[in-house]
Amino acid sequence: MRDAAAREDSPGAGRPPATGQLMAAEMGEQPAVLARLVERSAADAASVRAIAPTPLAGVMFVARGSSDNAAVFGRYLAELTAGRPAGLAAPSIYTRYRAAVDWRGYLVVALSQSGSTPEILSICQAVRAGGATVIAITNQPDSPLAAAVDLVLVTDAGPERAVPATKTVTAQMLLLTVVAAALGGSAEPGTGLMEAPGAVAAILADAAPMADLARRWHAIDRLVVTGRGLAYPAALETALKVTEVTGILAEGISTADLRHGPIATVYGGAPVLLVDAGGPAASDIAELRALLGRRNAAVASLPVPTALREAVQVIVATVRGQQLAWALAQARGTDPDAPAHLTKITATT
Amino acid sequence: MRDAAAREDSPGAGRPPATGQLMAAEMGEQPAVLARLVERSAADAASVRAIAPTPLAGVMFVARGSSDNAAVFGRYLAELTAGRPAGLAAPSIYTRYRAAVDWRGYLVVALSQSGSTPEILSICQAVRAGGATVIAITNQPDSPLAAAVDLVLVTDAGPERAVPATKTVTAQMLLLTVVAAALGGSAEPGTGLMEAPGAVAAILADAAPMADLARRWHAIDRLVVTGRGLAYPAALETALKVTEVTGILAEGISTADLRHGPIATVYGGAPVLLVDAGGPAASDIAELRALLGRRNAAVASLPVPTALREAVQVIVATVRGQQLAWALAQARGTDPDAPAHLTKITATT
Repeated sequence: MRDAAAREDSPGAGRPPATGQLMAAEMGEQPAVLARLVERSAADAASVRAIAPTPLAGVMFVARGSSDNAAVFGRYLAELTAGRPAGLAAPSIYTRYRAAVDWRGYLVVALSQSGSTPEILSICQAVRAGGATVIAITNQPDSPLAAAVDLVLVTDAGPERAVPATKTVTAQMLLLTVVAAALGGSAEPGTGLMEAPGAVAAILADAAPMADLARRWHAIDRLVVTGRGLAYPAALETALKVTEVTGILAEGISTADLRHGPIATVYGGAPVLLVDAGGPAASDIAELRALLGRRNAAVASLPVPTALREAVQVIVATVRGQQLAWALAQARGTDPDAPAHLTKITATT
Repeated sequence: MRDAAAREDSPGAGRPPATGQLMAAEMGEQPAVLARLVERSAADAASVRAIAPTPLAGVMFVARGSSDNAAVFGRYLAELTAGRPAGLAAPSIYTRYRAAVDWRGYLVVALSQSGSTPEILSICQAVRAGGATVIAITNQPDSPLAAAVDLVLVTDAGPERAVPATKTVTAQMLLLTVVAAALGGSAEPGTGLMEAPGAVAAILADAAPMADLARRWHAIDRLVVTGRGLAYPAALETALKVTEVTGILAEGISTADLRHGPIATVYGGAPVLLVDAGGPAASDIAELRALLGRRNAAVASLPVPTALREAVQVIVATVRGQQLAWALAQARGTDPDAPAHLTKITATT
């Protein structure tokens, strides 16, 4: 409606519809945001090392929505580098069941773009009262969440106004790579991350592959997005982004979980998107591709470079997923900046 | 094919197609299976208490497929009763990244009907080498998994031959309730569970509500199943069961996660199934029902009694979900005993 009116008001402009310009602009800021965080990474890592419990009993992540997909990335990285078990919090245990749990020895990492989701704040207060050391990763250093924790790491991405989170998600992922490196004792966490800004910029300049795929898939109403290992959170986030901006029921799932039952949904012509970020789990994608071929699924992949550090490739794949979601919205005529019935902050408790 | 042949071989029998008889029979065995486990519960709890690490650093669950949905149930219960953080393992960290992680102080609970999934066995070997104490919950006491752990709790459900797991899942859930009670120091874990066999028998004798719903929903191709707190794993398992036997893309999701984005998939006429098992999270279902009404979704609920202990109501809700999956398969003419392209044991690594 707004676009039709805009076109009528400026008949000579000849511009495309304005929908999605906000999301596209925020996606475009990602190289600069990531570069700032890489520059800051040694200082952030030192802050994390200074407050991490010793000995460390475990690491737990708390988040919702896109931040929760970043949290899954953090959960994998933390267990790999810290060498202690990591996990994802179950919020209702604190907000609904009001359990008293002994969190001594744990590092808890809470992620919230706004720092204003009531349940994330409640959980941080509960686990801190139980003895946990709590880090908040947020875009709002003056938020209630930032005031309630032991250490704040700011994504410093500038205001995010489009409803689908983009630049704050990749910023969270980069910061989680720094947190994990710190837990592994690294003094120079930025070394392997310096390629991230340039790699993301290259992807953003290469919009054609996702635009082509969106044209091919513009009429789908369901989608399976799958990856394994560090690529699994990129699959989750791609599925959520597509769902948010199009209303397609997109399910993000690990390649192994897909084979334990949900593969039944994948038959002739069913669209499946593979997320392959290289690394030790890549062979699973190759095996799955063969299986999906035998089932005559409509298989596509997120094109990602292959020479970067795996964690950087996952960030790049996440940007590819944003591109696909944006292009699908364009192809379907929905507005990704403000999808029907979604709001920027969801006040679950 | 098998059923058509059977009908041709016995033309005078006049019986309905045999599809689903195996799954129905195994569902019907659940009251007896649960009764056996309730009777054994004090002894099982004592075995758990005898091997649980002291002090306990945390509890972690390892599983795939339906067993993984039971594991989510165990994860909630364990944190609530043990008073230490719990979580779900990320298998690829061990099978693909081959990480060396310090698991000292942790209790790990692995769930596998067959005890033969290679990755579950690999993870148990890895975490045990890292210092964890490992319990296996399996239907096969002579399996490789059973031989690789510190304690085996047998579901004792008899052979399960239908591809969709039913009686072994509710048996796992009951055993997880016993494990959690043991971690909370209870000597009589069976007290609150004695009503489970009778409640499940009553549900099995009341097939009409799910048959009616299946007739109404026989043509759907996607479905959202949602619950919160202890009911969330019943939502996950209902979604998986529906997916396995029908090919419908059914996504199980917590009510809170649904509101953080995926609600965009729920608009006029979209089918949503609510799982309400009572307890402190029930108010979320009431709130969500109102929101879904405003979005004109096609909302239905799993009917569950309201006077039982919450954990028992979750087991009952899981059986309602099996009933719905079975009835949907009947309504769509698919065979739930051996769904297309699924096998009983999935050998992910």
